[in-house]
Amino acid sequence: MRILLVGAGGVGSAVVPIAARRDFYEHIVVADSQQDRAAQAVAAVDDPRFSAIRLDASDRTQVEAALREHRCDVLFNAVDPRFTMPLFEAALAAGAHYLDMAMSLSRPHPRDPYEKTGVKLGDEQFARDGEWRDAGRLALVGMGVEPGLADVFARYAADHLFADIDEIGIRDGSNLVVEGYDFAPTFSIWTTIEECLNPPVVWEDGEWRTTEPFSEPEVFDFPAGIGPVECVNVEHEEVLLVPRWIQARRVTFKYGIGEEFIGVLKTLRKLGLDSTDKIRVGGAEVAPRDLVAASLPDPATLGDRMSGKTCAGTWVKGTGKDGSPREVYLYHVVDNAWSMAEYGSQAVVWQTAVHPVVALELVANGVWKGEGVLGPEAFDAVPFLNLLDAYGSPWAMREAREAA
Amino acid sequence: MRILLVGAGGVGSAVVPIAARRDFYEHIVVADSQQDRAAQAVAAVDDPRFSAIRLDASDRTQVEAALREHRCDVLFNAVDPRFTMPLFEAALAAGAHYLDMAMSLSRPHPRDPYEKTGVKLGDEQFARDGEWRDAGRLALVGMGVEPGLADVFARYAADHLFADIDEIGIRDGSNLVVEGYDFAPTFSIWTTIEECLNPPVVWEDGEWRTTEPFSEPEVFDFPAGIGPVECVNVEHEEVLLVPRWIQARRVTFKYGIGEEFIGVLKTLRKLGLDSTDKIRVGGAEVAPRDLVAASLPDPATLGDRMSGKTCAGTWVKGTGKDGSPREVYLYHVVDNAWSMAEYGSQAVVWQTAVHPVVALELVANGVWKGEGVLGPEAFDAVPFLNLLDAYGSPWAMREAREAA
Repeated sequence: MRILLVGAGGVGSAVVPIAARRDFYEHIVVADSQQDRAAQAVAAVDDPRFSAIRLDASDRTQVEAALREHRCDVLFNAVDPRFTMPLFEAALAAGAHYLDMAMSLSRPHPRDPYEKTGVKLGDEQFARDGEWRDAGRLALVGMGVEPGLADVFARYAADHLFADIDEIGIRDGSNLVVEGYDFAPTFSIWTTIEECLNPPVVWEDGEWRTTEPFSEPEVFDFPAGIGPVECVNVEHEEVLLVPRWIQARRVTFKYGIGEEFIGVLKTLRKLGLDSTDKIRVGGAEVAPRDLVAASLPDPATLGDRMSGKTCAGTWVKGTGKDGSPREVYLYHVVDNAWSMAEYGSQAVVWQTAVHPVVALELVANGVWKGEGVLGPEAFDAVPFLNLLDAYGSPWAMREAREAA
Repeated sequence: MRILLVGAGGVGSAVVPIAARRDFYEHIVVADSQQDRAAQAVAAVDDPRFSAIRLDASDRTQVEAALREHRCDVLFNAVDPRFTMPLFEAALAAGAHYLDMAMSLSRPHPRDPYEKTGVKLGDEQFARDGEWRDAGRLALVGMGVEPGLADVFARYAADHLFADIDEIGIRDGSNLVVEGYDFAPTFSIWTTIEECLNPPVVWEDGEWRTTEPFSEPEVFDFPAGIGPVECVNVEHEEVLLVPRWIQARRVTFKYGIGEEFIGVLKTLRKLGLDSTDKIRVGGAEVAPRDLVAASLPDPATLGDRMSGKTCAGTWVKGTGKDGSPREVYLYHVVDNAWSMAEYGSQAVVWQTAVHPVVALELVANGVWKGEGVLGPEAFDAVPFLNLLDAYGSPWAMREAREAA
């Protein structure tokens, strides 16, 4: 397998040292619009199987040419979701497989944005499913941690733990703190604004509907010492992916974003600073959201100042195989001190980066096989979860017990 | 008197129709960095005593040349306080009098910003007092509404109402609302950020000290139906001006900015979006604060969507002429419906614009005479307050009574 990894930002750069410890591929070409960023990511490992190129992810033709020139059979998309469609199309045109961690973007319903869905996350990709099947190629979409591992957990629960599922609720929370900054998000602010300010989507009784941003707040008690964190509905791919393959009455995604961050996002929206439309400032034309991102520290560089753990997981409620009510939380925790010491990557980007590498290894070895546009829950979860253990990053399960 | 009015923004444009009803001057040249903005302000009145030019307020030499070319004997500064020093210096160099509504900017104390003053508001101007005296010219600084009218009120109280003053507290509040926007400040956001995020300054027992932003919140009950508004300490010129001419144990400025606006300002600071240092965004270089200002509606254009009243005033506590405790609030209220109907200007900019015109009329008629750098409280308050009545915008006084 020869891989074109597009994007040497936080997650793309974290992929390199993870993949460097594995031997399922022949070569990885790391591409970024800033060639020195790609070169830096490659220089972090002393491994001839990696090389760096400059590439504009928005230019479909240039990406297709790079896939052909470097004889890559997989495009691994690690850039922000604005570039999902040109990369997805370039891979199809070049006859390569494709993997991403964030699907094509949504557009709100023109009249009822907080009740009805408009264009949903991934709609543009699923519309092309037939072409991928015809080409005999796999587009594995939403294959990071959330979406990604969270969907694998859902499939595992459906196959092995439950006879009938009432609700699948993805829950993400952390106790990470960053020293030395008044405010420093641990993940891309551009993407966080996108997912948190869009109308959150919920699957319920056979259909998708939307709500107001930050709706249905609940306190979820995260494991591994993280403890209770307030979570709110957020637009996320799992809600669009899980119901396509798994029966559940309800599917939700709630993010433990915290009161302070919610306040920041509401203020950005109120002031129009979430906008991606360029405005005139003096002699320049700038999109407010790009300026907000530029004024904050790059989350990938904060690992040394961070401490704490981040947890991603899937909370499933329903009827167990034995017919009695069951409730479990399948989860994956990364301690920033561990990921920094072991890989030199901060916890949040490391946790996003490891799962697509595991998935590519399963694809390379023929364990995960498929054609068309497929989510992680379309595949057997067991080999994935076992291989994750082999990557030194085990998952865990908390079983709810009746109160005494 | 020939006046060079620099700045045809909200306040500068509001000056034109106010001055057009008076006859104390010969000509007013309206100057702006955007000539069409100056021309528009002039076009709003059909009066040959006004003309428009293009002028870069940051260019001392250009301003000095304009003063000479148009034979102006007064420079009226109506641009934001970044440009105070070049305009102040240009007027001195050209032998003109000078008037502004916001003084030269402060710089926080390098080590104890929230306890000690660094460079104070107006320090750069007062340092040049000798040169103005030598030139026999007047620099009337801080002559808007606050500072400006508020300082006139303080002088009136000291001369006519009190034997001894304990505290002079400027209090500013409104019940203005703007329809159709999630967030729309009624005054320059650039200036509001500057004054609200700098360490507030307080005069107490013979010296100036600073506090944390938004300190010492108190609810002040504003008159004219506005009612109780939460006010907090804000850096403002009155605190620096009043103690130079008036004996008082304590001088404060509190702004009824409201909880929502305070939250917005705190978030802007947390994200570094209050900064005036340019940062790189894609190919452009932009100061975050300039982008924030550009993304919000221009407050001067909001009059039609606004309703409510704004109140500026001076709360004085001490011992009355008869030796008994006394407490008064001297105030000036503008109803947006009135200022729009009468002058086509929204309430906040109209209230800022009227007082410097009154002051210039007193200077033109020789009622207010002086040489050097002087604040409004250096002059007799009575002719000012009487003339304000003649402008159709009377002031009022509320006397605190003992509770029964």
